[in-house]
Amino acid sequence: MKNILVVLSVNAEHKKLLEAKAPSARFVYSDQRNVSEEQVKDAEIIIGNPPAHMLKGSENLKWLQLQSAGAGDYTAGDVLPKGTILTNASGAYGLAISEYMLGVTLELYKKLHLYRDLQVRSDWSYAGKVRSIYKTTALIAGLGDIGGEFALKLKALGAYTIGIKRRDTAKPGYLDELYMMDKFETVLPGADIVALSLPSTKLTNKIINERTIGLMKQDAIIINVGRGNAIDTEALCDALESGRIAGAALDVTDPEPLPADHRLWRIKNAVITPHVSGGFSLQETHDRIVAICADNLEAWLNGRSLKNIVDLSEGY
Amino acid sequence: MKNILVVLSVNAEHKKLLEAKAPSARFVYSDQRNVSEEQVKDAEIIIGNPPAHMLKGSENLKWLQLQSAGAGDYTAGDVLPKGTILTNASGAYGLAISEYMLGVTLELYKKLHLYRDLQVRSDWSYAGKVRSIYKTTALIAGLGDIGGEFALKLKALGAYTIGIKRRDTAKPGYLDELYMMDKFETVLPGADIVALSLPSTKLTNKIINERTIGLMKQDAIIINVGRGNAIDTEALCDALESGRIAGAALDVTDPEPLPADHRLWRIKNAVITPHVSGGFSLQETHDRIVAICADNLEAWLNGRSLKNIVDLSEGY
Repeated sequence: MKNILVVLSVNAEHKKLLEAKAPSARFVYSDQRNVSEEQVKDAEIIIGNPPAHMLKGSENLKWLQLQSAGAGDYTAGDVLPKGTILTNASGAYGLAISEYMLGVTLELYKKLHLYRDLQVRSDWSYAGKVRSIYKTTALIAGLGDIGGEFALKLKALGAYTIGIKRRDTAKPGYLDELYMMDKFETVLPGADIVALSLPSTKLTNKIINERTIGLMKQDAIIINVGRGNAIDTEALCDALESGRIAGAALDVTDPEPLPADHRLWRIKNAVITPHVSGGFSLQETHDRIVAICADNLEAWLNGRSLKNIVDLSEGY
Repeated sequence: MKNILVVLSVNAEHKKLLEAKAPSARFVYSDQRNVSEEQVKDAEIIIGNPPAHMLKGSENLKWLQLQSAGAGDYTAGDVLPKGTILTNASGAYGLAISEYMLGVTLELYKKLHLYRDLQVRSDWSYAGKVRSIYKTTALIAGLGDIGGEFALKLKALGAYTIGIKRRDTAKPGYLDELYMMDKFETVLPGADIVALSLPSTKLTNKIINERTIGLMKQDAIIINVGRGNAIDTEALCDALESGRIAGAALDVTDPEPLPADHRLWRIKNAVITPHVSGGFSLQETHDRIVAICADNLEAWLNGRSLKNIVDLSEGY
C-alpha cells in the first residue's frame, strides 16, 4: 500500500478527486507548517511543498509533486534523494497571473494608480495622457504558461508580441517574433512593455540592471511576476525616480518582503503588490493545481509518464 | 466657396488631412472657448462642438460634425436650424474607453485599488481572494462601439457576454446573448460584471437604482462610462457601504464633477476617475475623431451619405 502525503491545502472536493485516483493508497493530510519529519520519511509520494530540509535522506520517497511552478528550493543537489522524480504545478498559474499582469499593465497605462491617489484626496483632477495596449510592442521574457497566456491576451488586444525563451521551440501563433535568451538585449530597445515571468537562474539574475535599463525606451514599463532577483532593485529605483523609464509593476521584489523603509514603496510610478498574483488568491488556480496532481497521480499509478517533470540539472 | 469652421483642437497633421479633402473650401480654426458668434454664423459646416447657444438662428449652417459620441447638447428642438444634418464621432472612443473599462474591471477584480492603498502605507499585506474575468458573466448595456469593443475584449478573455441594445440588430459573434432594453431586469440577476455605456435618455435615467440593485448578485460589480445619471448615486453608495454589491468603477458621476465632500470618494470599493476615459486622453482617439471628420467631409463634398448621422428625434 502506497503512502501518499498531501501537504497541499485541499478541500473536500479536492480530497475526493485525489483519492478516487488511488483507491488503495493511504492518504495522510497535513500542511507546510505542521507536517512532521516522520510523515515525510514515511511517504512514497508527496503532493505539495514540504520543508526542503525534511526531505534529506528520505528512503521511501519516489516522487515529489510540487504545488508551485518554481522548483528552486528542491533542485539543489542535496535536497532530494537520488532518483526521486520532481514535478511542478506549471499550468495552474497562467490564468491568475496573466490576468494580474494585464491588470497592472492597464493600471500603469491608464494611470489608475494615480487616480486612486487622487481619489483618496477627493480630487477630481486630470492625471494626463494615457496609452493603449493596442499597437504597443510587448517583450515577454519567459514563456511558460504564465508568459504564454499573457502574450496571448496582449495579442488579442492588438499588441505586437515578442517572446524570449530559454528552450528552442516552435513559435506559437500569438507571438509575432520568438527568440532565445541571447537575443534579449537585441529586442529590448524596441519594447513598450517588458514582462518578466522568469525562474530564478544564473542567467536571469539581474537581467534588468543599470546597463540594460539604458537600452530601454524612455516610455517603457516593466512588469515582474517571476522572481524578484531578475531586477536590480536599486537600478530600477534610480530609473523610475529619474524618469529614465515610465513605470514598473512588481509582484515580486528583491528584497522580499520589501522592507517598510525601502524607497520603492514611495515611487509614484511603481506599483507594488506583495507576491499575491499567484498562490491561492484565485480559486481556479487552487482547483487547477489539484487537477494537475490528480492527473499525475493517475499517470504514476498506471505507469504512464508524468507531466511537468523538472529537469534537476537546469532547475526548472 | 464653402466656409468650414473647425472648433475641434487639431495638430498640423490633422489640418493637412482635413484640408486635403476640401481644397477649395475656406477653413477657419478656433476652439470651444474662443470661437465667436460671427464665426459660427458664417459657417456652412462646423467640425467640433461649438457652444450650443451660438447655433440658434444660424442661416448658413448645413452640417454639424461633432467631436463627441454623445449629442445631447445639440438634439433639443431649438438648438439646430431646421434641416441641419448632425453627425457624431461614434467609433473614435471605443478603443480608449473599452481599454479603460477592462483596466478598472481588473483593478476591482485583482484588488489593485486596495493594494495601492496598502502601498501608500508601505504595507506588505494580503488583501484577500481575487476573481478572474475568465468564466464570469458580463452584462453590457449599450452596444455602440464602446460597449461593443468592451464585449469583444471580455469574450477574448473567456467571459460569457450578454448585450443589451436599444435598437434591434443581428447578434455579433462576440456576444453570447443579445436582448433589447426591456429585458435588462431579466438578465441583470445573472451578471457578475454590469457595464453601462448608455447615452442619456429617459429610458436610461437611473436604470441602476435601489430596486434594480436589489436584483443583482452580491458579488457583482458595476462599471459606468456612459452618463452619470444612469445610476442613482445615493442608492449605489448605500449598496456599496452595506456590501449589497461588491464594487463599482465610475468614470462619470451624478453629480459631476463629484463634490469634494461626497461620501462616494471614500467608499473603499468605489473606483472614481474624473471623466477621463474618453476625451483626448489617448492620442489614438484624437486621430480617429479627425479621421471620421475627414471621411465625412469627403463624403459630403461628393454627395455621398454621411456616417454617424444622429437621429434628432431619438437623441443619439
